[in-house]
Amino acid sequence: VGLPLPERLLIARLANAVADNAKSASRERLASKSDDLKVVTGIGDDCAVLRLRQTNDILVTTDFTLENVHFRREWHSPESVGHRCLVRGLSDIAAMGGRPSAAFLSLAVPPKLPQSWVDRFFRGLLKLARESNVTLSGGDTSRSPSKILADVIVLGCVPKGTAVLRSGARPGDRIYATGAIGGSAATLSSLYSSKRKGVNSQLSQRYFFPEPRIRVGQILRQKKIPSSMIDLSDGLSTDLSHLCEDSGVGAEIWAASIPRAVTGKSAKPIALDLALHGGEDYELLFTASPRQRVPPRVGGVAVSYIGEITSRKQISLIHQNGSSSLLEPRGWEHFRRRDS
Amino acid sequence: VGLPLPERLLIARLANAVADNAKSASRERLASKSDDLKVVTGIGDDCAVLRLRQTNDILVTTDFTLENVHFRREWHSPESVGHRCLVRGLSDIAAMGGRPSAAFLSLAVPPKLPQSWVDRFFRGLLKLARESNVTLSGGDTSRSPSKILADVIVLGCVPKGTAVLRSGARPGDRIYATGAIGGSAATLSSLYSSKRKGVNSQLSQRYFFPEPRIRVGQILRQKKIPSSMIDLSDGLSTDLSHLCEDSGVGAEIWAASIPRAVTGKSAKPIALDLALHGGEDYELLFTASPRQRVPPRVGGVAVSYIGEITSRKQISLIHQNGSSSLLEPRGWEHFRRRDS
Repeated sequence: VGLPLPERLLIARLANAVADNAKSASRERLASKSDDLKVVTGIGDDCAVLRLRQTNDILVTTDFTLENVHFRREWHSPESVGHRCLVRGLSDIAAMGGRPSAAFLSLAVPPKLPQSWVDRFFRGLLKLARESNVTLSGGDTSRSPSKILADVIVLGCVPKGTAVLRSGARPGDRIYATGAIGGSAATLSSLYSSKRKGVNSQLSQRYFFPEPRIRVGQILRQKKIPSSMIDLSDGLSTDLSHLCEDSGVGAEIWAASIPRAVTGKSAKPIALDLALHGGEDYELLFTASPRQRVPPRVGGVAVSYIGEITSRKQISLIHQNGSSSLLEPRGWEHFRRRDS
Repeated sequence: VGLPLPERLLIARLANAVADNAKSASRERLASKSDDLKVVTGIGDDCAVLRLRQTNDILVTTDFTLENVHFRREWHSPESVGHRCLVRGLSDIAAMGGRPSAAFLSLAVPPKLPQSWVDRFFRGLLKLARESNVTLSGGDTSRSPSKILADVIVLGCVPKGTAVLRSGARPGDRIYATGAIGGSAATLSSLYSSKRKGVNSQLSQRYFFPEPRIRVGQILRQKKIPSSMIDLSDGLSTDLSHLCEDSGVGAEIWAASIPRAVTGKSAKPIALDLALHGGEDYELLFTASPRQRVPPRVGGVAVSYIGEITSRKQISLIHQNGSSSLLEPRGWEHFRRRDS
C-alpha cells in the first residue's frame, strides 16, 4: 500500500533537500536583505507561492538533463550531474543579466537506482544552489521506466524592462566572449578516446562543474554594456547564429581572437574547431556598440573582443592568414565525437 | 551539420506553437484587459520574461508526464496526452484558488516518433491552453533515448497572501469534494480488462480529457470559503491524508456521501474503492468552517459534503451500516490494476 518505495524515498529526500535549502537560503537572505523574489510557500503544497518585488520582471527557463543524452553514469559523478542540471538554467538567467532566485526539480529515477546516487546528486545540486543564492522550491518526482531524467526550472528576476535579449545586436556592434571556450569539448573528446588521464584537471573540473557567469551578466547589464547577449551552451558557431538570426544581422569573427581554453603544463590552446563548435562552456557571448567602453575583465573574468556584427546576414570566420570562410552553425550534439 | 533532424523539427514546431498561442492569447487578453501576469518575451531567448501585476503572488507547479508511467501510446491519443500533461499543472493552480497564466513545456521524443504524433500532441495541449487562457511561453526540447517524456510547468497568480494552502484545516471543519470521483479509475480499469467498448463514453471523455476546476477554485477563494484545499490527483484517500498531515489533523468521511461517478444507462455508481483510491479525477477537495455557508453548486459544479475534520490524527471511513474502519492512503499508482 502507499506509493512504491523508491518514490516515497525520493519524495522524502526532495522534501528534506528543499527544507534544508530553504532554511539556509532564508538565513542568507536575512543577511543580504535583497528580497527580489521571495519563496512564501515552498514544497509540500499543490504549488509553490513566490512573491516578487514589484519593480522586477520574472525570468523563467527550463532545461532537460537526460541520462545518455546529456550525461553518462560511467563518466559523470552524481554530484556532477546534480551540478550540471542546475547550471544550465542559471546560465540562461545570467545571459539575460538576471539574478536567479528559485529552482524547481522534476526528477524521475529507475526503481533500482541506489539511494546513494540520489543523495550525491542532491549534494551537487544543492551546493551550487547555495553558492548561487537559489532556493530549491519544489518539483515533481516519478519513477522512470529505465533512465534517470531531470528537468530543472529556474526562476529569476531583473529590473523591469532591462532583460538583455538576443535580438538587440546592430551592424557595427562589437562581439565579445567571456572566459575561455572549448574546454568542455576538449574534455569530452578525451573521455571518448578514453584518455582521461590526459585531461588537464582544471579543464575537466570546468567541464564537470561549470560555473555560471551570473555575476558577470549582472554587472554587464547594470553598466548597460550589452546590446544583446546569449550564453555559450550549444557552441560558439550555433549560439552566434541564434543571436544573429534574432537580431536580423550577420557577423565576422577572427580566429586569432577567440579565447581558446588551454591544456597541459605547456598551456597549449585546444584545437580551434573545439572552440568554434564545442558546447557546454557556459560562458557569455555579447555585443556592444563601438562607443561603449568594455573593460578587459568583468567581475574577475576575462572579456575578449572576437569580431563584429555586419549587416550582411552571414557569419564569416577570418583566418589568421587573412583568408575568410563561411562559419556554419555545427550545433553541439552531446556525445557526438568531434574530430580535433 | 546542425542539430539532428528530429530535434530541429521539434524546435520549429514548438516555436510555431508558442507563436500561434501567444498571438491568440494576446488577442484575448486585449479583450479581457486582465494582465495579471503578462508574457513580455516568449520563446526564442535564453529565458521567457514575464511581468506580474504587483498585487499578486506567483504560483509555480511542475509535473512530469512519462510514457508507460503516466500514459500508454496504445491507449491515449496524442491529443489526450497533450491535454493531460497540461491539466496536471492547471489543476494544481486551481487547488490554490489561482489563475493560470503561462505554461512551459520540456519535451523529449525518440528519433523515430512520427511528426504527426507531435503535431497532434500540440493540438491537444494548445486547445486546453487556449480554453484556460494560458500562454505557452517556452520550454526545452531534446531527443530521448526511447520513450516520450514531457515536463510541464505552469505559472499562475493569486492576490497577495490569498493562496489557499493544504495546511489550514481545523478540527470541526467540514470536508467537501467537487464533481464526481472515481471515473478515471473506472475507465482505466476497463482499459486494463480490454473492455473498452463497455466504458461509458462520458466517463472516458473525462478520463482522457479531464477538465481542471480553475473557475471553481477561484470562486471558492474569492468567497473565502475554504480553510484548506487540494486537488484530487492521487486519489481521495491519499490526497485527504496529505491535507490532514499538513494541517496536523485527522478526518472522518462518510461512504454514503462520497459523490461517485456513474456509469451506463442505468447510471450505476462505480465501486466505492475506485472513488476512495482512484486518482486523476482533478476534482477539488476542500474544508470549510461549519459557520461558512457552502452552496450545493459552485460555478456550475456540484459540491458534496463528505465528512469532517477531527483532532484525532487518523482518517476513518464511516460505512453505510454505521460501522467504521481506518482509511489507509492507498496511493494512486498509474496503471496498477485495481480490484473493483
